[in-house]
Amino acid sequence: MASTPENPARSLRLACRAGTHTGPTPGLAHGYGQANLVVVPREHAFHFLLFCQRNPRPCPVLEVTDPGDPEPRLTAPGADLRTDLPRYRIWRDGRVAEEPTSLLSHWPADAVAFLLGCSFSFEAALLAAGLPVRHIEQGRNVPMYRTTVACQPAGPFAGPLVVSMRPMTAAQAIQAALICNRFPQSHGAPVHWGDPAALGIHDIHRPDEGDPVDIRPGEVPVFWACGVTPQAAATHAKLPWMATHAPGHMFVTDMREGG
Amino acid sequence: MASTPENPARSLRLACRAGTHTGPTPGLAHGYGQANLVVVPREHAFHFLLFCQRNPRPCPVLEVTDPGDPEPRLTAPGADLRTDLPRYRIWRDGRVAEEPTSLLSHWPADAVAFLLGCSFSFEAALLAAGLPVRHIEQGRNVPMYRTTVACQPAGPFAGPLVVSMRPMTAAQAIQAALICNRFPQSHGAPVHWGDPAALGIHDIHRPDEGDPVDIRPGEVPVFWACGVTPQAAATHAKLPWMATHAPGHMFVTDMREGG
Repeated sequence: MASTPENPARSLRLACRAGTHTGPTPGLAHGYGQANLVVVPREHAFHFLLFCQRNPRPCPVLEVTDPGDPEPRLTAPGADLRTDLPRYRIWRDGRVAEEPTSLLSHWPADAVAFLLGCSFSFEAALLAAGLPVRHIEQGRNVPMYRTTVACQPAGPFAGPLVVSMRPMTAAQAIQAALICNRFPQSHGAPVHWGDPAALGIHDIHRPDEGDPVDIRPGEVPVFWACGVTPQAAATHAKLPWMATHAPGHMFVTDMREGG
Repeated sequence: MASTPENPARSLRLACRAGTHTGPTPGLAHGYGQANLVVVPREHAFHFLLFCQRNPRPCPVLEVTDPGDPEPRLTAPGADLRTDLPRYRIWRDGRVAEEPTSLLSHWPADAVAFLLGCSFSFEAALLAAGLPVRHIEQGRNVPMYRTTVACQPAGPFAGPLVVSMRPMTAAQAIQAALICNRFPQSHGAPVHWGDPAALGIHDIHRPDEGDPVDIRPGEVPVFWACGVTPQAAATHAKLPWMATHAPGHMFVTDMREGG
């Protein structure tokens, strides 16, 4: 986790801070873990952390900052969560109000920031094992589906489990489960494979978010808990104020992806 | 997790509730996971949960109740944490004030209860694999040591990592690490093996708590994060009020120990 000038994660964060990088982060700072960001006022921090504790597959907590402290001391010491992401979303009463490139003028004095693992780390491990990640092959966004499986609620935070889907053969799916099980902080093993109806998904070719991908003969859909879940729960809570990363504009940590 | 009359975990809890069982729980309700209990007022619940999140090896969170709710709906639906343990400790300003057999007249309206995994589950797995658990062989309490390794603090909660020790040969220790890694909610893999001085332990034959055990030729001490750690951190915080289980008088859940 040394922050030498050669650390590409730190370089990217500094480019965000300087305003010279404002675009998406997938594929950048190769080998460094990326994270979802959710920022809530102190009074809602207990229940949001409790929501994550009760729903660890969709909400793997990498780090929670001390109230008011914008530095993620564990995953990227020296970084500043108010400036070091390329783009943010400010939510008011559950709706997007702004998409600024800095939170410097938006950071409540008692803000608590949550960094949550995302799927990039396990996808890198799948690719390294020669397993297919179809949306990457096809140059699309991963397909995501709202399921009829309810998360365990906590205070004002509630909502459905959202899943992502990657098609594989049965043998590949077994291998993927064993690999992903080693990445509990990147959503871990799949939550389901096979019949989409078991999750309440009626048309696998019409995802609720992202793009459809091809499912080839001999393949089944394999479903993972998705990092959109906690964001959906947070917006469901209709807090007067909260902030997140903008989609695809993640926080790049100093954590290596090796698992 | 069915609560049939034949469920020995539920039977034991009901005996505690009726006041007919007030003794220790190790060895009872065989096959059902037991848990450490920590109860704090709502205002300290965020920081205690954050302490657990930052120190998952010593503080594996099994369940956190909603503020005021004495029912652990996930790990023992229908149970009542105010009555279903054999004995409690009430702490005031970091010191034991009482050891009642019920919290019914002590439960703050906004109490938040934490159930934390304990070592019994991984010890059962070690024994099932034919590995030695010396303090059980010798009919003693497990030896525990305060280390010079500091936990990651959170708000008022801070303190040293406390470890338990079980002597094994190197080959047994490797096997134990692989087995315990499957039990993250029971402290997981060891944190150290070999030289006690690396943890700041000066005399392995004089534990800070529990009893010394024999270390035989060819064996090394193997150290696991210990559930005394969060209790030490909670008492360090000197809260005006908190409650825990009394030592050895655990909460017996409906969770099977299989891992």
